[in-house]
Amino acid sequence: MEYEDPVEELSEAECRRLLGTVPVGRVVYTEHALPAVLPVAFEVAQDGRLVLALRADSTTARALDGTVAAFQADVLDPETRSGWSVLVHGHAEVVRDHLAQDGLYDAGLRPWVGGPRPVYVALTPELVGGRRLRAVGATAAARPAPADK
Amino acid sequence: MEYEDPVEELSEAECRRLLGTVPVGRVVYTEHALPAVLPVAFEVAQDGRLVLALRADSTTARALDGTVAAFQADVLDPETRSGWSVLVHGHAEVVRDHLAQDGLYDAGLRPWVGGPRPVYVALTPELVGGRRLRAVGATAAARPAPADK
Repeated sequence: MEYEDPVEELSEAECRRLLGTVPVGRVVYTEHALPAVLPVAFEVAQDGRLVLALRADSTTARALDGTVAAFQADVLDPETRSGWSVLVHGHAEVVRDHLAQDGLYDAGLRPWVGGPRPVYVALTPELVGGRRLRAVGATAAARPAPADK
Repeated sequence: MEYEDPVEELSEAECRRLLGTVPVGRVVYTEHALPAVLPVAFEVAQDGRLVLALRADSTTARALDGTVAAFQADVLDPETRSGWSVLVHGHAEVVRDHLAQDGLYDAGLRPWVGGPRPVYVALTPELVGGRRLRAVGATAAARPAPADK
């Protein structure tokens, strides 16, 4: 049987475009020597950096500051088992410039949950990769198990 | 102004229950000395282990085998900014027992994308935590910026 691979590797340009279509992703950082994963609101700045919006009291922002972090976003449809997933690695830094902070706030970028004035963390993408999962895979998976299994 | 924290820490029991309500999560492992994040189909076994379904040719399964890995799942509603997120750390091991493999296959557990016969990885939860985000936060975030900012 000819087998069509439902996984397509995405170009960096396509990954960056897809990141701009979702309001939330997941930042991966190290906490107590273990990987932590936190959903976080973000947007793609004009210069290509990802700006994450965190609560003012966020330990995550402190843990991220000055490190190389990973950031992941996806859109997945469990019905068709299609979608995409993008993974970015890059240097993260708390945005300390007050004008930049005000600009981001005025543009409406807010943490996923409310609370006091947010902290923004800028992540400069250095490695960008992703994959698209086409629904053809779902069709194959939905077939009965082969008799010779 | 009284401030109601919209973030609620979840009990381990509630985290485990929530994990059973979604078909896909994200496994975090180390690849080329960097954290990698991959969406993966999974289910919660009766003994509480998470069983991840990966493609037979998965480098992820090989990378996970015998390590301590993180696994994250969430349901997030961008409209109301409510939802939940659960993070698990535990020992991961490829399921090598053929009877166990057949049982998982017959029960319908399949990788997110189709392809050849899957590889299953069992993750034994050692640390389990999570949080629920209540929509009250969204209301606060939607208020106009305070005049004194």
